[in-house]
Amino acid sequence: MLDRFLVVSGVASLCSLAFVVYLARYVLSKPQGTEKMAAISRLIQQGARAFLFREYMYVFPVVLTIAVLFTVVGAARPDLGLNWATAIAFVSGALASLLAGFLGMTIATRANARTTYAAETGGVKSALDVAVSGGAVMGMGVVGISLLGLVIVYKLFNGEPAIVNGYAMGASLLALFARSGGGIYTKGADMGADLVGKVEAGIPEDDPRNPAVIADNVGDNVGDVAGLGADLLESYVESIIASLAVAAAMNTVMYTAPEYVRAFPFLVAAIGVFASIAGVMYVKLFARTNPQKALMMGTYLSAVLSIVGVGLYSWARGQSFELSGVAYQWYGPFVSCVLGIVSGTIVGFTSEYFTSGSYRPVRRLAEGCQTGAAIAVTEGTAVGMQSTALPVLVLAIANVAAYHFAGVYGIAVASLGMLATTGMVVAVDSYGPIADNSGGIAEMSGLDPKVRKITDNLDAVGNTTAAIGKGFAIGSAAFAAIGLLSAFIITAELQSKLVLDNPRVLSGLLIGGMIPFLFTSMLFRAVGRSAFAMIGEVRRQFKEIPGLKEGKPGVYPDSAKCVDIATRGALNGMMVPGILAILFPAIVGFMPGLGPQALAGMLVGAIATGVMLGIQMANSGGAMDNAKKYIEEGNYGGKGSDAHKAAVVGDTVGDPLKDTCGPSINILIKLMCVISLVLAPLFIG
Amino acid sequence: MLDRFLVVSGVASLCSLAFVVYLARYVLSKPQGTEKMAAISRLIQQGARAFLFREYMYVFPVVLTIAVLFTVVGAARPDLGLNWATAIAFVSGALASLLAGFLGMTIATRANARTTYAAETGGVKSALDVAVSGGAVMGMGVVGISLLGLVIVYKLFNGEPAIVNGYAMGASLLALFARSGGGIYTKGADMGADLVGKVEAGIPEDDPRNPAVIADNVGDNVGDVAGLGADLLESYVESIIASLAVAAAMNTVMYTAPEYVRAFPFLVAAIGVFASIAGVMYVKLFARTNPQKALMMGTYLSAVLSIVGVGLYSWARGQSFELSGVAYQWYGPFVSCVLGIVSGTIVGFTSEYFTSGSYRPVRRLAEGCQTGAAIAVTEGTAVGMQSTALPVLVLAIANVAAYHFAGVYGIAVASLGMLATTGMVVAVDSYGPIADNSGGIAEMSGLDPKVRKITDNLDAVGNTTAAIGKGFAIGSAAFAAIGLLSAFIITAELQSKLVLDNPRVLSGLLIGGMIPFLFTSMLFRAVGRSAFAMIGEVRRQFKEIPGLKEGKPGVYPDSAKCVDIATRGALNGMMVPGILAILFPAIVGFMPGLGPQALAGMLVGAIATGVMLGIQMANSGGAMDNAKKYIEEGNYGGKGSDAHKAAVVGDTVGDPLKDTCGPSINILIKLMCVISLVLAPLFIG
Repeated sequence: MLDRFLVVSGVASLCSLAFVVYLARYVLSKPQGTEKMAAISRLIQQGARAFLFREYMYVFPVVLTIAVLFTVVGAARPDLGLNWATAIAFVSGALASLLAGFLGMTIATRANARTTYAAETGGVKSALDVAVSGGAVMGMGVVGISLLGLVIVYKLFNGEPAIVNGYAMGASLLALFARSGGGIYTKGADMGADLVGKVEAGIPEDDPRNPAVIADNVGDNVGDVAGLGADLLESYVESIIASLAVAAAMNTVMYTAPEYVRAFPFLVAAIGVFASIAGVMYVKLFARTNPQKALMMGTYLSAVLSIVGVGLYSWARGQSFELSGVAYQWYGPFVSCVLGIVSGTIVGFTSEYFTSGSYRPVRRLAEGCQTGAAIAVTEGTAVGMQSTALPVLVLAIANVAAYHFAGVYGIAVASLGMLATTGMVVAVDSYGPIADNSGGIAEMSGLDPKVRKITDNLDAVGNTTAAIGKGFAIGSAAFAAIGLLSAFIITAELQSKLVLDNPRVLSGLLIGGMIPFLFTSMLFRAVGRSAFAMIGEVRRQFKEIPGLKEGKPGVYPDSAKCVDIATRGALNGMMVPGILAILFPAIVGFMPGLGPQALAGMLVGAIATGVMLGIQMANSGGAMDNAKKYIEEGNYGGKGSDAHKAAVVGDTVGDPLKDTCGPSINILIKLMCVISLVLAPLFIG
Repeated sequence: MLDRFLVVSGVASLCSLAFVVYLARYVLSKPQGTEKMAAISRLIQQGARAFLFREYMYVFPVVLTIAVLFTVVGAARPDLGLNWATAIAFVSGALASLLAGFLGMTIATRANARTTYAAETGGVKSALDVAVSGGAVMGMGVVGISLLGLVIVYKLFNGEPAIVNGYAMGASLLALFARSGGGIYTKGADMGADLVGKVEAGIPEDDPRNPAVIADNVGDNVGDVAGLGADLLESYVESIIASLAVAAAMNTVMYTAPEYVRAFPFLVAAIGVFASIAGVMYVKLFARTNPQKALMMGTYLSAVLSIVGVGLYSWARGQSFELSGVAYQWYGPFVSCVLGIVSGTIVGFTSEYFTSGSYRPVRRLAEGCQTGAAIAVTEGTAVGMQSTALPVLVLAIANVAAYHFAGVYGIAVASLGMLATTGMVVAVDSYGPIADNSGGIAEMSGLDPKVRKITDNLDAVGNTTAAIGKGFAIGSAAFAAIGLLSAFIITAELQSKLVLDNPRVLSGLLIGGMIPFLFTSMLFRAVGRSAFAMIGEVRRQFKEIPGLKEGKPGVYPDSAKCVDIATRGALNGMMVPGILAILFPAIVGFMPGLGPQALAGMLVGAIATGVMLGIQMANSGGAMDNAKKYIEEGNYGGKGSDAHKAAVVGDTVGDPLKDTCGPSINILIKLMCVISLVLAPLFIG
C-alpha cells in the first residue's frame, strides 16, 4: 500500500514537472531574433552540451566504481544493509542530478537569445518573462525530478535508511563535480577573457573579437546554471534525507507517531512545490517595469505560502510525538522550519549588507581601492571574514532553539524549511546567467546599445534576491550537515564515545578542519592553471591571426580552441579534489589509531571551517565584485582610474572565491557527512 | 621547604639572566659608528620606547580591571579559589611579559647601529656576533624572567592551580596586545613606506627621504622583536602551565608520583635554559663565514642537548606513574617531548618547503605572477591553504601518539618539548630584525654599498632557521591549547557532557570557528586603515615639503608625524579585538542557552579554524614574500618587470598575513583557553 504522504509528494513532483513542460514550451515558442543571434546561441549551446557530456564521462567511472563497491560489500556482509539496493539508490540520485542539470541547461541556453530578442522588441517586461521562465525550468525541474526520484526509491525500498541515504550520496557526489567543474570552467574562461581582452587589448566585454568570449558565455551556463542546479538539488535532497535519517536513526526508541515524522519532510517538500509555482507565476504575471520588486515579491510570496501551508498542515494534524524518549509538541517541527527560514533570511540579508554597493562595507572597500590593488584585496578579504560573525551567531542560536523544539530532528527540519521553496530560489538564481548571456549576445550581434541596457538592468537586479538564496544555501548546509552528522553518530553507535577531550576526536577535528582549506587550494589552483592557459591562447590568437584585434570584417577568432581549454581545465581540476572528498571519510574511518571516533571529529571540524570559509569566500567575492561596479558608476574616479584598476584586481581575486570555491565547500561538507552516514554500518563494533 | 625542582628551575632562570647581563654588556661595549648612525639609531630607540609606553598605558586599565574583578569574585565566593592571589599571579604574568619585552627591545634597538659598524669594520663574523648577542638578550631574557616569575608565583601560592593559571593568563593577554599592536604598527608603516616610496616615488627602500622609513624601522622592533618576544614568552609559559594544569586537574585520582609530573615541566624548562645558552655560545664562538650554517647548527645543538638532557633525567629518575587511574611508563613524558620536537620540526620544514624560493611552490607562484596581480594573490592564497595539509596530519598523529604515551599530560608536554629551547629560538628570530635595521641604518647613513650587502646577507640567512621556530610556535600552540582545553573540561566538571551531538557543543563550535575569522578581519582592517593614513601623510610630505623628493641637502622629512600615525593606528586597532577575545569566553560561558558546554565547543572550534588560518596565513605571506625576492633575483623579467609588479602586490597582501594576523591567532586561541580555565570554577554545577 502506498503511504498517503508519498502519494501527495509524488503528485506534487508531477505537477512540478508539468509546470516545467509548460514553461519550456513557452520559452521555445519565442523567436530567437536574427540568424546571427541564433548562431551565437547555438555556439553556446554546443559548448555547454559538449562540456556536460565530457563531464559525465569523467564522473561515470567514479559512480560505477562506488556502485560496484556497495554491491560487493552487500554480498560479503549481507547483515549490514549496505548492498545492491544502496547502489541503485545511489545511481538514481546521481541520475536525477544529471537529468535536472541537462534539462535546465538545455532550456537556459535556448532562452538567452530569446531574452535578447524580447528585450529588443518588447522591453523589460517581456525579457524578464522569458528569462524567468527559462530559469524556472531549472528550478522546478530540480525539484520535480529529485522529489519524484526520492519518492520512487523510498517506496521501492520501504524507506530503509541504509538504502535511501544512498540517493542523497549520489546527488551530492554529482553536485560536487558539477559545482567544482563548472566553477573552474566559468572562472578560468572569465579570467582569461577579461585579463587579456579588457585589460591588455582594451576591447569591451563580450566583444566578438575576443576568442575566449564564447567560452566565457558557456561558462555562465555550465557553472551558474548547471552547477548551481546540481548544487541546490543536492541541498534539497540532502535536507529531506537528513530529516528522514535522523528520524530513522532514532527509531529504536520512538514510541508514537513514527509515521508523522517520516511524512513531515515529504509534505513540506510538496507544499514548497506549490508555493514555488505560485511565486514563479506571480513574477510572470505581475511584473511590470520594476523587475527587482517582482523577483523579491515572488520570493517572499512563495516563502510565506510555504510557511502558512506547513503551519496549517501541522495544526490540522495536531500530532505530538516522541523521539528518543523525549516528548515534543505538534508545533515543534513547524517552529523549526520557521527558525530555519528566519535564520536563512538573516544570513541572506547579512550577505546583502556586506556585498551591496548601497552599504558601508562595499563603499569603504571602494574607497580603499584608491590606495592600490593590495589594499583592495586585503580589505575585501577582511569584509568577508567580518561577515561571518552575525550569520554564525544566528545559526548557532537557531541550532539550539530548533533542538529545543524538536531535538536533532528539528535541526534537520530547519534546513528543510529553508529549502522548501528551492524551485523559486533556483528560478531566480538561474535567471541571472540567462540575462547575462542575453547581454553577451546583444553585444556580439551588434544590437542597439539600448538592448544591452535592458539586459544589464535585468542582470543587476537579481543580485539581492539571489543573496537570500545564498543565505539559504549556507544556512541549510550547516543544518543539514549537523543533521546528517547526528544520524551518523547514532547509526555508528558512537553517542557516548565522542567526548571532546578524546584525543581521536580532537585529531579528527584538526584533520577535518584542514580539508576545506586543502580542497579550496586545489580549486584555486585549477582556476589559476586554466586561466593561465586561456590567457596564453588568447594572446597567441591576437598575435597570430592577422586583423583579429583590429576587428577586420570576416576575421573570426578560434572560439572552439578556447572552449576546449576551459573544458580540459575544468575536468582535470575537478577530479582530484572530488575523489579526495570521497576518500577522506573512508580513510580516517578505517585507519588504526583514528577510526570512527576520529571520523566524527573530522566531520565536525570540516563543518566548523567549511561554514566559515563558505560564508567568507561568498561575501569577499561579492563585495569585491560590487566595489568594482560601484567605482564603475563613477565613484573615486570611475572607469579607467587607478582605483578602478585596483578594483579589477580585487574582483578577479574574488570571482573564484564566490563562484567556485565557496559553493563547492557547502557541498563538500555535506558529501562527507552523507558518505560517513552511508558507511556507518561498517563502523559498528 | 623549597621543592628541589623549583630550586633547580630558579637557579636556571638566574643563570639565564646572568647570561643576559653578559650579552647586554657585550653589545653595549661595541662602538656605534658615526654620529649620524648613532642619531638614526636613537630615533628608532625613541620611537620604539614611546610606542611601548603608550601601549602599556592602553593595556594597563584592562589588566587592572581584570585583577579587580578577580579580587571581587574572591571576596564574594571564597569557596572558588579565584581571588586576590589569582589577581597577583595574573599581574605578575603581565609584568613578566612587559619587562622581557622592554629589556629585549632596549638592547635590540641599541644593537642595530653597532651591527652596522661591526659589518663595516669587521665583516660578516663580527656583525653576526653583535646581532645574535642582541637577539639573545631578548631570547634569554624571555626565558629567564618568565621562568623566575613562575617559580616565585608557584612557590608563593603552593602551586594552587586556580592561582598559578592566572600567571599564564597575564602573559597571554599582554602577548595578544603586543603581537597585534606591534603587528599593526609594523605593517601599517611598512605598507605606507613601500607603496608611496618604492612604488610611486621610485626611491629605494630605507631611503632617508622617505618620511615613513623611521616608522618602518621602529615597526621592525616593536613588531618583530617586542611582539615576537611577548608571543614566545606566552607560548613558553603557557606550555609549562598547561602541563601543570593538566597534572593538577587529574590530581584527584592520581596515586603515585604526583611530585614527578609536577617537577617534570620545570626540569624540562631548566634543561632548555642551559641548552639554549650552549646554542647561543656556539654561534658566537664558532661562526665563520657562513652565518646560515652557524645559526642552523646552534639551533640543532640546543635541540639535541635538550632532548639528551630530558632523556637522561627521565631515565635516571625511572619513575613510572599514574594519571586518572591509568599507568604510564617513565619514558612516557620524554617520548611525548620528542614527539613534540619532531612534529614541530616537520611543521617547520613544511613551511620552509612552501615558502622558500628554492622549491616548486614559490617558483610556480613566481611564474604565475607573469599573468598579473590577481593570479599572484590567488596562487599565494592557494599555496598557504595547501600547506596546511601535512602539518595538520602530523600534529593529528602526534596528538594521538602523545596521548598514548602519557595521556593528556603527554599532549601538553609535547608542546613544552618544542618550547624548551625558546631562548635559542627567540635569539634567532630577534636577530632578523636587528640585521634588517642595521641595513636600514647603513642605507640612511650613506655607507659603502658593501656594508649593506653584508647586512642584507645576514638578514636573509635567518629565514630558514626562523621557519623552524615558526613550526614550533604553531605546533606548540595547538598542543598547549588542547592541554588547557582538557584541563578546563576536567576543572569545570564537564567530561561526560561534551558529546559531539550535543547542540550546545555544536553551536559553541560554530561560534568558536568564527572568532579567528572575525579577529583576523579586525586586524586586517586596522592594518589597512593605518597604511591608508600613512600613505596620505607620505604623499602630503612629498608634495608639501619642497626639495624632499629630489633629495636636496638639508631637507628632512617629518618622521615623527609618521611614527605618531603608526602608533595611533596600532593602539586603536588592537583594543577591540583584544577585548573581544577576553569577553567571548565569558559571554558564551554565562549565556543562558549556551553555557559552559558551548564554551568548550567554542574553544574546540577556535582551535580548528585558528590552527588552519595560522598556518595558512604564515605560509601564504612567506610564499608571496619570497616569490617577490625570487623575481628580484632576475627571474621572469626581474625587478621592474610586470611579473615583479604583480609580486609586489602579492607581497603587500601577504605581509599582514604573516606578521600580524597569523601569529596573533596563535595567541588568541591559547588566551581564550586559559581564560576559560581560570574561569572554570565559576561554571561548576
